[in-house]
Parts: sequence; structure tokens; C-alpha cells
Amino acid sequence: MKALVKDRAARGFVLKDVPEPTIRDDEVLIRVRRAGVCGTDVHIYEWDAWAQGRVKPPITVGHEFAGEVVRVGRLVTDVHVDDRVTAEGHIVDGRCLLCRTGNSHVCPYTKIIGVDRDGCFAEYIAMPATNVWHLDDAISFDIGGIHDPMGNAFHTALTAEIPGATVLITGCGPIGIFAVGICKAAGASRIIASDINETRLALAKRMGAHDVVHPTEAEGVVKRHTGSLGVDVVVEMSGVPSAIHQAFALVRVGGRVQMLGIPPKPVEVDFPREIIFKGLTIYGVVGRRMYDTWLLMTRFLRSGQFDPSPVITHRFPLEAADDAMRVIKSGEAGKVIFEVA
Amino acid sequence: MKALVKDRAARGFVLKDVPEPTIRDDEVLIRVRRAGVCGTDVHIYEWDAWAQGRVKPPITVGHEFAGEVVRVGRLVTDVHVDDRVTAEGHIVDGRCLLCRTGNSHVCPYTKIIGVDRDGCFAEYIAMPATNVWHLDDAISFDIGGIHDPMGNAFHTALTAEIPGATVLITGCGPIGIFAVGICKAAGASRIIASDINETRLALAKRMGAHDVVHPTEAEGVVKRHTGSLGVDVVVEMSGVPSAIHQAFALVRVGGRVQMLGIPPKPVEVDFPREIIFKGLTIYGVVGRRMYDTWLLMTRFLRSGQFDPSPVITHRFPLEAADDAMRVIKSGEAGKVIFEVA
Amino acid sequence: MKALVKDRAARGFVLKDVPEPTIRDDEVLIRVRRAGVCGTDVHIYEWDAWAQGRVKPPITVGHEFAGEVVRVGRLVTDVHVDDRVTAEGHIVDGRCLLCRTGNSHVCPYTKIIGVDRDGCFAEYIAMPATNVWHLDDAISFDIGGIHDPMGNAFHTALTAEIPGATVLITGCGPIGIFAVGICKAAGASRIIASDINETRLALAKRMGAHDVVHPTEAEGVVKRHTGSLGVDVVVEMSGVPSAIHQAFALVRVGGRVQMLGIPPKPVEVDFPREIIFKGLTIYGVVGRRMYDTWLLMTRFLRSGQFDPSPVITHRFPLEAADDAMRVIKSGEAGKVIFEVA
Amino acid sequence: MKALVKDRAARGFVLKDVPEPTIRDDEVLIRVRRAGVCGTDVHIYEWDAWAQGRVKPPITVGHEFAGEVVRVGRLVTDVHVDDRVTAEGHIVDGRCLLCRTGNSHVCPYTKIIGVDRDGCFAEYIAMPATNVWHLDDAISFDIGGIHDPMGNAFHTALTAEIPGATVLITGCGPIGIFAVGICKAAGASRIIASDINETRLALAKRMGAHDVVHPTEAEGVVKRHTGSLGVDVVVEMSGVPSAIHQAFALVRVGGRVQMLGIPPKPVEVDFPREIIFKGLTIYGVVGRRMYDTWLLMTRFLRSGQFDPSPVITHRFPLEAADDAMRVIKSGEAGKVIFEVA
Repeated sequence: MKALVKDRAARGFVLKDVPEPTIRDDEVLIRVRRAGVCGTDVHIYEWDAWAQGRVKPPITVGHEFAGEVVRVGRLVTDVHVDDRVTAEGHIVDGRCLLCRTGNSHVCPYTKIIGVDRDGCFAEYIAMPATNVWHLDDAISFDIGGIHDPMGNAFHTALTAEIPGATVLITGCGPIGIFAVGICKAAGASRIIASDINETRLALAKRMGAHDVVHPTEAEGVVKRHTGSLGVDVVVEMSGVPSAIHQAFALVRVGGRVQMLGIPPKPVEVDFPREIIFKGLTIYGVVGRRMYDTWLLMTRFLRSGQFDPSPVITHRFPLEAADDAMRVIKSGEAGKVIFEVA
Repeated sequence: MKALVKDRAARGFVLKDVPEPTIRDDEVLIRVRRAGVCGTDVHIYEWDAWAQGRVKPPITVGHEFAGEVVRVGRLVTDVHVDDRVTAEGHIVDGRCLLCRTGNSHVCPYTKIIGVDRDGCFAEYIAMPATNVWHLDDAISFDIGGIHDPMGNAFHTALTAEIPGATVLITGCGPIGIFAVGICKAAGASRIIASDINETRLALAKRMGAHDVVHPTEAEGVVKRHTGSLGVDVVVEMSGVPSAIHQAFALVRVGGRVQMLGIPPKPVEVDFPREIIFKGLTIYGVVGRRMYDTWLLMTRFLRSGQFDPSPVITHRFPLEAADDAMRVIKSGEAGKVIFEVA
Repeated sequence: MKALVKDRAARGFVLKDVPEPTIRDDEVLIRVRRAGVCGTDVHIYEWDAWAQGRVKPPITVGHEFAGEVVRVGRLVTDVHVDDRVTAEGHIVDGRCLLCRTGNSHVCPYTKIIGVDRDGCFAEYIAMPATNVWHLDDAISFDIGGIHDPMGNAFHTALTAEIPGATVLITGCGPIGIFAVGICKAAGASRIIASDINETRLALAKRMGAHDVVHPTEAEGVVKRHTGSLGVDVVVEMSGVPSAIHQAFALVRVGGRVQMLGIPPKPVEVDFPREIIFKGLTIYGVVGRRMYDTWLLMTRFLRSGQFDPSPVITHRFPLEAADDAMRVIKSGEAGKVIFEVA
Repeated sequence: MKALVKDRAARGFVLKDVPEPTIRDDEVLIRVRRAGVCGTDVHIYEWDAWAQGRVKPPITVGHEFAGEVVRVGRLVTDVHVDDRVTAEGHIVDGRCLLCRTGNSHVCPYTKIIGVDRDGCFAEYIAMPATNVWHLDDAISFDIGGIHDPMGNAFHTALTAEIPGATVLITGCGPIGIFAVGICKAAGASRIIASDINETRLALAKRMGAHDVVHPTEAEGVVKRHTGSLGVDVVVEMSGVPSAIHQAFALVRVGGRVQMLGIPPKPVEVDFPREIIFKGLTIYGVVGRRMYDTWLLMTRFLRSGQFDPSPVITHRFPLEAADDAMRVIKSGEAGKVIFEVA
């Protein structure tokens, strides 16, 4: 089959013919229809320090996808051929104390598809049946193909108290924009989204932000709408050090900062002034809660209260992987997907 | 001044001239503009068993209102003449352990205006400054005058997890209809509202219910939209014994039942089948959380995400109190208010 | 092998030779060493209405046990021969939405060993590997054999806020007595235990109750230690209707009632007075949270902060099942266990 | 009266005669019996950068105390002459949205006694009646005099889930040692306390720590007792940068870090590795929750489950303030108190 492969320890991907995956008794084989492209894929493509430390070529890349089940292992009882599905890309052990107590999103034995084992930028992918999530008939493969990053946004937004809250979202990449729409659908009373990029701010506005601002304007707008107190919740999606400091500065005393954006290097934190004397709660977001987040996401999509389709701005065939990487790095894209089949 | 008074231990109210209230140093005097009429007022009007056991005539009735401040006690620093306000009608001691630990909504020393001391169906009312809640300029006196029952609805709805939830609301009196709109604004993914009255169901539909049903249809509709599992949350607003049993039957295992409706007599509960083996959580709702509920309510109103105005269906002068009582008892009304000034 | 069997639709058990269980690829075979006897076993023994409606003879009874693993299915990776283990007796589907979102304790597809499939009053039992829970070396088979009912007590007690709480425990059967010790270890500031049986009250005292009282004395003692307010938490372990009413009466406003005891028939509840106007939260307890409860239990046992051994008052061989039933029904026993091997 | 005063912008305190405080109508006058000495007092004594930026001499210092009420303002109804009391030293406005919604511990308008207005290292102090907390007859003035720092420890410890938890406490100054005893009383299953000072470690051991270690040994001990996973909760009491990094390193994935210790300068945080990819929750602790923390503290003291008296190691008269400062700075002291009267 055709697959996009990190075939050696160097920049770039190659599209090549590889053997179709075999499946274990507890796995299913899925024909990939759509696959989302993530910043993580760009890191692997660029072969940066993180990628060099984590990824072992050769490996098929990609971890966001949707498709149809074409084969089912002998022990699998609740997934069937032709089922329309997506999947949680974090494969956990399911037996450690964290998994057994509702915390598999931080299972220390996690393997990620497209990072630690073969991924989904390919015609087929093998997945453990436990990780499969069925798509409602009304959910397109396009939307199914971006459940993974939407899930990050749902996890980030809805582990804070959103109904009635004032929310600042710093960073309007795809996950930040999803978070705007989720907070809007979940009843935030004021959503202020900040970014340096006009295209992204326009998307945030379209997804329901009350105010879209450049970072330099954020303080003024936050104060105007919060009686100078600061917002209840900051959703930090940028990983930019100045945005992290702004998060601590613009959240109200006793408020909550949800951190998903990954700063590229250590950040100096003035703990007393920025966190302790403000009585803040900081939450580090990793992956998606299994499967609370997935159920919430399905509910929001099924009802139509959250429609992520405007966020998908670019589509490519696997053959155009270089173009996909280029458009993401340009900062002009919302979500970029591969149309695999 | 003019006031609607329960002047003796018998059915009815009389409109009479009474002295304008005096205020203590920590109180304010408010000129009443609008006042909401509540089922509690009907109980007092009818002089039923509950009223006979609680209310000591003569007393000015009414506990929901909004108006303007006209006088301010010597010790009051944060309420001023001409401020547009409403007020929490439960006057608590503020010093007991419950009040000091965030539970003043269940303060054992609560006095309710219009029930335990003079109320708001009058041209003026004296209120402790601690109970005053300022109205945004954008909030009308009409809406200000129904903050008390809306607060009950906010307290009932938002002490459950609403974003993404499936919700059954049994009973579409004014508080039930408010709850429909609040759940919708807070991101419930499916809201099923039941009542026996078409007018009320039409209001529930207008406020955002996905399905409006007669109680006999509720089971079928709930099962259709929840994979036969039942809803995550039931908001019980009717006090009807059969609705209470239906709440326990149609909530999913591990779900939550919020109880506000007051059944007129004891109800036989089959605890193992209805509650224990289902792993339910039942929450008894009294009043409004002080002042968490009020802040949430203000946020929802200020943003426009919740607009209760369609629920107000009838307006009367104080002189037409008998008509107001009659229309409420007819079951054809949404919220009924007095236009006092 | 030897097994205690409900062999027909009539009162009693018979000890007989039955084939050793076979195991599936994802199961393990366990040699039973100790097995706890539960009120549920008594219901099945007596063949009461509940048992007649639920149990299909012939079936090996018993659902509380500990032992050693003697055989392991081909797919099992984390349980090994000779492992010292106990097991969660509720076998859930693991795939429904409740199981996938941390609520498998209320999985609608639960099968219980000794009730819905062969149980543990036998020399060997087959269990899915997912249900196995390893015992620390320091935990005896005696204690391992009663993890199931202790788990109920942990679930009941620790889903309330116990540190610093005043707690009334109504009903001092084994689970009630366990709850006394758990609340003590978790920092309850006052534990009042009530029962009509002196032997049980003596055990409750030994496990750490500050006060042990007859139900008629409970009100006075609660009021004395709570400034007349009532306790923060009631743990209802009796299923006696008068105790349920007492729970609602003696919990403070805004408090929490944890209900585990199973009343034999419907109870008339005066919702406004007993629950709604008090602002109570009622929680129906079913089984044990999988596996949060099990982890907490292991932590409490490993540290020695909770020692349930005084609660085991009687030991019998499987041959003396009739004696075991008799002593439980007498009300004079704490926990009764079978010494199987 | 006699008072310890910061009389000018320079190092040191002077004991001098000052006028007895007058009280407002809503205040009470308290004769101070015991007063605790805090690190904050040392900062003011030393006149460091923080003190220079915050404190305006002349001012009577000290913020931890207990004593007897000797005069009561006209409007005060629930505090009486001769009452034995302590008090919350953070004087909040009581009317801002944070105060009205249960978050007065982060009220932006807080004034602290001994920092922003005259404090308690004096024969008498005036306090708003709202801030007064009654002492049980069984609680000595010694213990009453250290309610403020004990309250910090209660707030820090009990806003995490302690029953059954594994806890690392970094820093065994008085508040850290209190936290050891509180976690022990609240059912932590393993408490590991670290410090560089043997005297403090001995006190931590006496208060119930299972393990007392030097920071260099902490990693090994934590791994040994947590299956290499890390502790559920870290209580960071030192403010030492290396301890903060150790907190993030030794808490388990998905765990919680409670931060009270104040680092003297910014700390470089590697957010992805230390917080985000671990899925941590960080909570900044300021003051005591009003008055939830106080109620819990009283419960723990009244029951005897927590006895802080071993932590008090030194007692001085006000005349010996220089000695008190010296002994605190030596690191050899637990809690130091003034015996005022």
C-alpha cells in the first residue's frame, strides 16, 4: 500500500509502497479516508531535536484519521467491517494503576501512532479495537479525521468551568480555534481570542469569539470586560513565553489556566507574583481523557451545537505532503487534512 | 404607601395604605418597579395548610422584585440612591457556620421577605444592603423583577454538569421553562421538556427545548435519544409524584436528579430499584447560592446568551391581584408580573 | 472439585462435586483460599423473592474471595501462576459508554459471580484477568477474602468528604463497621454509630467510633456533638425505613446521605421536608468504583491505617454452610468467612 | 499600651508605648495573650526588598494571635466580652464579587494586620467582628495564637485529596510540619517529609511522617514507596527552587502540586516536561479559605486528631523580640511564640 514514511534520520517524508499492516486478534484494520496534519508531524518532517530524540525511522507517520473498518480480529466483538470510525491514537496498556483509575490519558506506557508505531498517513492502519471510536452517520470523514486535535480542545476547555465564564484563549491555531467554538457552545459569557495572525483571528471570530485581538490589545480588552479583575479561565494554546506570562497576568485571582501550548524552551516564572499570591490553579493538558472527552465531543457534534468545519482550510492528497507542510508553517492555515481515499 | 397585604388568617389579599418602611443603618429603601408573582404567593393567597403554619398576618406579601434605591442607611457604602437593583429575598444571619462556609442558601436562620417579614408587593421595600444585587444598565426592570425564580432555575441547572449533557426537564412552569433556556445556553446536547399543558410546552420549545412532550411520551423520546440508557440529568420542576418516579426511571444509571418541585404529600420511593442500584445522585434545591448563582445569572443575561423575556406572559397592576392569582392557577401563564411603578 | 451449589429452586445450598472450571484465553483460574459470606448469599440460601427473580439454579454461589492463581489464559500478560489475588466480582462489558467513561460500577451489562455465573464457594473459580486485583504480601488471605464488602464500605465512605467531618453511621453490620474504621482512618472528627445490637456496637467502638448508640439515642448524641445542626454526612447501612428517615432528619442542612442499605419495601418520603428544603445530596451506592475504590482500599490496608481484622468473628469450612447462614441471621456475627483451603 | 513597632524604614523593631486602639462600631478590642512569629515578621524586621515595597512605618507588627475580648462595638451581636478568640488576619471588603462567591481568600482589597494596619505584637488589637473566630474551651491560647499558619497548612493540605494518598512535603518549617500532622490525621497512606535540617526532620517525624529525608534522598524514597510512579500530591513548603523542580519531578503523572513556599526570585520552568506532558495540576495557596479552613481546623483540634503543640519550640516575651528573630533565622526552631500576657 501507499504510505507517507519517515524513512531515515533526516528532513522530509517519502511516499512509498509498504506492506499492508497485519492485525492481531484484538485489533482491526481500517481503510483511511481522511487524515489530519498536526504540528507534531511538522516536527517529525523537519527532524528537530524533539523528533530526533523520540522517533525511530523507518516509520509511517500521522496520528489523526477516520475511515472504514475492512478487517476485524478474532477477539473483537463490537467493531465490524464497514463501520465508520476514528480512533484514539494513544495506545495505553490498560492495566496500570493509572489506566485502571480513569487516568489513561497519562498512562506511562503510552505508544502513539505515527510517533512510536506506524501511523495513519497511509491507505490502511491497524488499531487495537479498544481505541476505535464509532462515528455517527451524520459525522463526515472530514470531521472524523480531526477528532484527535478537537479532542485536545475539548479536554482543555471542558476541564474548566465554562458556563457563564469569561475566557481568554491565547493562540488561534486549529486547537485554539476549536476551543473558541467549544467554549461558545458550552455557554462562556465572553470569549476573547488573541493571536498575531489575521487569518486565524478571522477564523476565531467565525467560530464565535466575542473579541479577537492582537496580544498587545489583550490586556485592555480583558480589563474592559471583567471590571479590571481578569478572566475566569485562560486557555493557553500558543506555547509562546510572552503569552504564558500574559495568561498568568490576565486571569483573575483564584482563576484557572489550562496549558496546552508547548513552549520551545524553559520559561522564567515568578511564582509568588504570577501564581501563588494569585491563588491560581494551573492544569497541564495531555491528550484526551479516555473516553470522557470523546463522548462529550460526539455529543457536541451530534447536536450541531459545535461545527468545526470552517476550521478546515486546506486539503491535499498524500502526494502533496511537502505542500501540506509548507502551508502549515506559513501560519495562514486553519486545519490541513489529507484526502487519502 | 400602597401595599398588597395578607391582613388576616383567611383567603385573599387586600390592597391597602400602610406606612412606608423605615430602614436600619445597614439597610436601603427601594422603590419597587416590577414584582414577580410566585406559586408561594398563591399558597399564601389561598391560605392553605403550609401558609397557615408559616405566615403570621398582617404582612405585606411578595418576594421577587426590582426597583430603584431611594434611601441608604448610614453604614451602607456600596449601594447608592438611584442604583437600579434587585435583591436576594432570603435574609440570612451571615454569621452562622453555614453562612461562613459558603452555604448561606441553607442558613437555618433565614427570614424570607413576603413570608417572614414585609415583602415587595408594595411601593417601597426595606432591604439589608448585603442582599442587594445591582442590575446592569442593559437589564430591564421586567427581567430584574424575576431574578429570584430565574435564580432557582440557574441553581438547579448549573449544579449539574450541563455542557454536552442530555437533560429531561419535568414540569414547564416558569422555573422549568427558565431551566430549558439555561441548559440550552450552557451547552446541553439534548433537552427534552415535559408537561401536560400545551401553552407551557410551546414556551419551552421557544426557549430552546429540542423535544417537548407529554409525560406519557417522555419515556419513548428519552430512549430514542439516549440509546435506551436514559438522560444524564433530570431537572424535576413539577412536584408531581408520577413525574418524580419518572425522573428516577428515565435518568441513566449513575445520573443525577435535581429536585425543585414540591410534592404536596409524601411519595413512596422504592429506594433499591429507583435510586440505590442505579447509583444515582439526588440534589434537593433550595433558593439560590449566595451569590454564585446571582453572578452566573448576571453573566448569562449580560451576554445575551439567555433571554427570559418570552416567559413573561402577563402583567397586572397591584390592583388586579385577584386576576393575577386566577391566571396563574389556570396553568395558561408563563411568568406573571406586577407593574408597580 | 468441591463446591457449594444452589442446585434447585428451593431453600438451602448443597456441597457437591462439580467439574473444575475451564478458562477462556483472557481468564485465569484461581484456587480459592478464603471466601466471605454476604447477606446476598443468605437471600439466595433462603430463596426469597429477590433470589427467585434473579438466580437460575444450578449455580455455584459466593462472590467474595481470595486465593492463588493456578492457571493463566494465553492472552493474559499481567497475572501469573502463584500470584496472590482477590477479584472484583462484577464482570462488566468494558466497552459500553459507561465503562469507557469511568462508570463501570453501573455498567448495565454487569454479571455478578455467584449470582449470574458460577461463584467462589468452591475450590476453584475462573475469573477474567481484568477483574483480578493483586494482594500485597502483607495482606492475608483472610483480609483478601473480604475485599468486596470492604470495597462497598470504602466506596460509600470516601465518595463523601470525610476529613474533619461529623459522621453518623446507621447500621453496624460488617459493612457499617468497616465504614466506621475507614472514616476514622480518613480523619472524620466525630463518628457516631448506631445499631440495636450490642455485639455490633462493641465492634463499631473497637473500630474507632467515638459514640455507639441505640437508634433512639442517636438524635440526642448527634445534636450534642453538632451544635444541634446535624452531622455533615450520614452513611446509611441498615436499610431500615426508620433509619432512613433518621438519616434525613439528623444530617445537617446542605449535608450528604450515602445510601447502601437496602430497604425491603418502598418507603414514604416527605421530599420537601426531608430532602428538598434541607438542600441535601443523596448518593445511591452500588458496588465499588473500578478500580479507584480498590486502589484506595489497598492504600489503607498497606499503610496499616485501617485494620479490618477485628470484624471477622466467625470461620467455617464449606461443609458448615448451614452454620454460617445461621450465625449471620442471628445478628451476633461480624464478618463470617469460609476457610476453603 | 506596650507594642512591638516598626517605627522607621530600617532594620529592627522597637518595643514602645503606643495608644490603646480605638474600635469602630463593628469591631472588637482583644487583649492579646499569645502571638505567633512568622517568616513575614522576619522580612519586616530585616527590612528586605519586599518589606520596603509593602510596609509603611510606623506600624505595630504581628498577625498571628489569640486572646480575650475586652470591648465590643455597638453593632456587634455575636462576640462578647471575655470570649476567648483568635482571628483571621486578612481583612477583606466582604462585598466584591470574589468575597460574595466564596473566594474572599483572594479578595483584591485585602488588608493584612501587622502589614497594612496595626498588628498583634501588642497588649491590645482592634479587629472587625467578622474576622473573629471563637476558640473552644479545650483549645489553649498557645494553640489559638498559631491558628493563622496552621490555617495555611490546612488550606494547603486539604484542598488536595488526602485520604489514601501518598504525599511528599518539601520543607519542614512550622507550616510544613503542621501539614505533616494534618495529612496524617486526614488519612494519607504515606507521608515523606524532606528538609536539610535535622531538628525539623525530627519534628516532622514526631508529627507523623512515615519517612523523613534529606532532599537528596527524596527521589529514592519516593520511588520505593510508589512503584517508581511518584506521589499523588506534593506540598511545597520551602520556596527553594531545587525543591520546586523536585516537586514537579516526584509527583506522579496526573498528580497535584500545592505551592505555598515563596521562592525569592524567578524559577526557570520547563513547562512541557515538568507540567504539561505530566498532566499536572498546580495550586497556588494564599491565606486560608474563609471560613471553610477555619472550621476544618477547629474540627481537627477539637477531636484531638491533630495536636500541633510539639511544633511550638520557643517562647519569648515581647521584650525579647531580637532573640525571637535570631532563633527563627537559625533554622533550629519549630514555631516561635510571644507570651504577651
